[in-house]
Amino acid sequence: MRDTRDAFHVAIPTHDLDTAVEYYVFGLGARLARRYPDRVTFDFFGDQLVCHLDPAAVVPEPVAYPRHFGVSFARPEDFDRLLTLIEHRKLPVFSGPALRFEGTAEQHRTIFLVDPSNNILEFKQYEDPRLQF
Amino acid sequence: MRDTRDAFHVAIPTHDLDTAVEYYVFGLGARLARRYPDRVTFDFFGDQLVCHLDPAAVVPEPVAYPRHFGVSFARPEDFDRLLTLIEHRKLPVFSGPALRFEGTAEQHRTIFLVDPSNNILEFKQYEDPRLQF
Amino acid sequence: MRDTRDAFHVAIPTHDLDTAVEYYVFGLGARLARRYPDRVTFDFFGDQLVCHLDPAAVVPEPVAYPRHFGVSFARPEDFDRLLTLIEHRKLPVFSGPALRFEGTAEQHRTIFLVDPSNNILEFKQYEDPRLQF
Amino acid sequence: MRDTRDAFHVAIPTHDLDTAVEYYVFGLGARLARRYPDRVTFDFFGDQLVCHLDPAAVVPEPVAYPRHFGVSFARPEDFDRLLTLIEHRKLPVFSGPALRFEGTAEQHRTIFLVDPSNNILEFKQYEDPRLQF
Amino acid sequence: MRDTRDAFHVAIPTHDLDTAVEYYVFGLGARLARRYPDRVTFDFFGDQLVCHLDPAAVVPEPVAYPRHFGVSFARPEDFDRLLTLIEHRKLPVFSGPALRFEGTAEQHRTIFLVDPSNNILEFKQYEDPRLQF
Amino acid sequence: MRDTRDAFHVAIPTHDLDTAVEYYVFGLGARLARRYPDRVTFDFFGDQLVCHLDPAAVVPEPVAYPRHFGVSFARPEDFDRLLTLIEHRKLPVFSGPALRFEGTAEQHRTIFLVDPSNNILEFKQYEDPRLQF
Amino acid sequence: MRDTRDAFHVAIPTHDLDTAVEYYVFGLGARLARRYPDRVTFDFFGDQLVCHLDPAAVVPEPVAYPRHFGVSFARPEDFDRLLTLIEHRKLPVFSGPALRFEGTAEQHRTIFLVDPSNNILEFKQYEDPRLQF
Amino acid sequence: MRDTRDAFHVAIPTHDLDTAVEYYVFGLGARLARRYPDRVTFDFFGDQLVCHLDPAAVVPEPVAYPRHFGVSFARPEDFDRLLTLIEHRKLPVFSGPALRFEGTAEQHRTIFLVDPSNNILEFKQYEDPRLQF
Repeated sequence: MRDTRDAFHVAIPTHDLDTAVEYYVFGLGARLARRYPDRVTFDFFGDQLVCHLDPAAVVPEPVAYPRHFGVSFARPEDFDRLLTLIEHRKLPVFSGPALRFEGTAEQHRTIFLVDPSNNILEFKQYEDPRLQF
Repeated sequence: MRDTRDAFHVAIPTHDLDTAVEYYVFGLGARLARRYPDRVTFDFFGDQLVCHLDPAAVVPEPVAYPRHFGVSFARPEDFDRLLTLIEHRKLPVFSGPALRFEGTAEQHRTIFLVDPSNNILEFKQYEDPRLQF
Repeated sequence: MRDTRDAFHVAIPTHDLDTAVEYYVFGLGARLARRYPDRVTFDFFGDQLVCHLDPAAVVPEPVAYPRHFGVSFARPEDFDRLLTLIEHRKLPVFSGPALRFEGTAEQHRTIFLVDPSNNILEFKQYEDPRLQF
Repeated sequence: MRDTRDAFHVAIPTHDLDTAVEYYVFGLGARLARRYPDRVTFDFFGDQLVCHLDPAAVVPEPVAYPRHFGVSFARPEDFDRLLTLIEHRKLPVFSGPALRFEGTAEQHRTIFLVDPSNNILEFKQYEDPRLQF
Repeated sequence: MRDTRDAFHVAIPTHDLDTAVEYYVFGLGARLARRYPDRVTFDFFGDQLVCHLDPAAVVPEPVAYPRHFGVSFARPEDFDRLLTLIEHRKLPVFSGPALRFEGTAEQHRTIFLVDPSNNILEFKQYEDPRLQF
Repeated sequence: MRDTRDAFHVAIPTHDLDTAVEYYVFGLGARLARRYPDRVTFDFFGDQLVCHLDPAAVVPEPVAYPRHFGVSFARPEDFDRLLTLIEHRKLPVFSGPALRFEGTAEQHRTIFLVDPSNNILEFKQYEDPRLQF
Repeated sequence: MRDTRDAFHVAIPTHDLDTAVEYYVFGLGARLARRYPDRVTFDFFGDQLVCHLDPAAVVPEPVAYPRHFGVSFARPEDFDRLLTLIEHRKLPVFSGPALRFEGTAEQHRTIFLVDPSNNILEFKQYEDPRLQF
Repeated sequence: MRDTRDAFHVAIPTHDLDTAVEYYVFGLGARLARRYPDRVTFDFFGDQLVCHLDPAAVVPEPVAYPRHFGVSFARPEDFDRLLTLIEHRKLPVFSGPALRFEGTAEQHRTIFLVDPSNNILEFKQYEDPRLQF
């Protein structure tokens, strides 16, 4: 298990701060924490996501591998709720939901999303949460 | 606060899986969770880090912004311990440690590391942990 | 102790949603959760604050009693950090910081703030956190 | 998530302290913490509610918006139990229970109560507790 | 460690319910939970204390052993705070504070109080909290 | 909720220390913590029970009120498990299991046991755990 | 309950460090923490397992009693998940799964595994988790 | 971190059950959970220790490596308290206390004890608790 008081920190590029707020807060349900001229920070599922205004670093086409980030849920109902939110809010799905490593101990559900700056997000839920690492 | 049972998930490229294990496990003190021909997964400070074997995606020179990841520690002693580990194990420092946003409420210490595949890591510790997002 | 997963909910009037965001997010360090044409919701120190757009309900002058809301911190350092943030960000103080019920078991520090819509906030820290109720 | 050791603090007017105790303790199941000539304090679902004796501040008619307070439960069974208690103890319902934001990700059940001094309380339960803010 | 959600339950006699409320709530800082014609219940340091109206069962003189109840604090500051509250509120001390089992691994501080119905309370704090059982 | 690290403390008389160990450890499943010539201490459901050797204080006949102690379980399965243990180990039941305050918000299941020194224990489980105080 | 931050520590012999890593990490799903020429350490279900390279200490035939170690799960689904993993990864079973102490309060499921160095592991799950000690 | 509700399980031989109880309960401060003709079980620092009556399996001389077990404390004060208990109760020390891996990130204090059946126990405390695995 991880410590409740620390936060994971991930920083990614965005082509536009307002669009990032629109997607992450009003789309994915993250919370806007701070905003500066060159970046915006979010409480993203309890961890810290920072979107830096850096259009040059935005990739022209979204690519799932190797760079992406997201959450591995311990409980299936949390994954289900995310699927519901994606459907209700019509968030663009990059691929999935799908079952990966099927028939093995590390079998898990996964869905890939793409944000408006072509960053890829992955959400997962392992049948055996002990194997989520 | 974040949920203890979920895990943040971040995936990055590596040019060599053995080197990634060497750096993350025997360097930073992450724990090796799983290994496949094309990837290796770690329990990285309680969250999941995946290094995908993808030499083509490795950038030729490390660049701090916008893409990096790491941990924002709630307690100063945890940041201090990481500095001690970096010193003892002679991990390459990209920049810092430094004080950022000095003289503001969101003042925090920060250090940037670079892994053997030119991925940038940032570790932080805010004076006011409530502002870590 | 209270349950970590539930949230207290408090709703107050505001004369302007943007001003409310400015004050609560960029001032007090709350996080913007959702925004609708007639209201904005915040993760306010882990609980839910909703500001309803209702200029008619805004009182012409701030009055400390009887209506106000805020946080009673269990640890003195959290109260200190809030004082630091108030100073750094020059948030308007309505009264205090002061020591209340001095020389009694329920002695506590307190500070009253006023938001841009004349709502009063109170933050407290009891010497004996068991008496915070 | 919120910190278990801190307490949210909300203060409201009452026209009569005994009536407030009767309603909040023997009605809603809060616990009486302290009593002074001009106020009474409660452990209200793990947070602090203070009723100030201030008949002049009591509104003549209860109005649901914008000022109210209550609890957003993370688990549906806690909302159900409150409905049962309301029924058993015949607490006056202002409106509901109702389903709000139906068909959206933030869909939630809600019920409004009115205390003997015309203060409005709202209890909620979101289908997706992550969106309770 | 004990479970946060369960409650220890202890029931004792009282010669008068009002006096019990006066002592336990306004004296020791417990919280009044429920009241019936023949009993009153308290949230006593997070556990449940019930005082039954039963004057015949009240002993004529308080006797420390063998029947008493109270709390064993894990942290010295909580014991200190109780001593402060006892002093401020002039609660009658039966004996102590004293050091018991001095010079042994199970050395602990202890204080005995007596309630208005001659029930004895003991509060303790072990130097090694692992030995509090 | 109560603090996980503190322990409730209750002391009762016994006519025989070995019998107390037999009943509380091998009967109720408490754990023997310490033993002295005149007393024995237990980790009793996470709290501290002390049996003092004091045959003169043992009452000749068990009486349920007003003096007894036990646990109020938050979850129904824990009460069920205790009933199973009582049946398997043929522990003497003083009365119950029964439903108390039926048809009210504070409805709960209860069972009274009697230990070999005529001390009465009560175990309870409220339908609404918030009302366990 | 046990403390989340401490770790149980168990040290056993192995005839070969690579084989130990293969079995514990890629078999049982432990995580490799550190490796030295003469030992390897694991995060084994949240506790520390150390395999010392000491072929002479390896027993020629696995014997279940008296020396073995493992985990007693509080929740049945965690035991079920381990059975699934054992089946998927074809880990050698020494005996079981079986029901032990059937028809008693301490009834529990158990399975014994044997590692490549003839060390015996036992995993258990009690119907009444309070009796897991 | 580990799960609070699961328990590590370790089983070792003893030449005499009474001696094992004497050492583990009245010496090390473990708690006696259950006793059978052929074994005795303990709540040992929150985990389960079982001593099987098996004199033939007891080794003639205590040997520190490779087989031993114990606790790795996250907090230095818990290690200090154990040293105090060892001194007060004159528990036989096999070696230490000593500093291991001095001058490295994984530096830790350690002490080895020997139980009356020649089983070796090790207690540790890492300067950086993140490296306790």
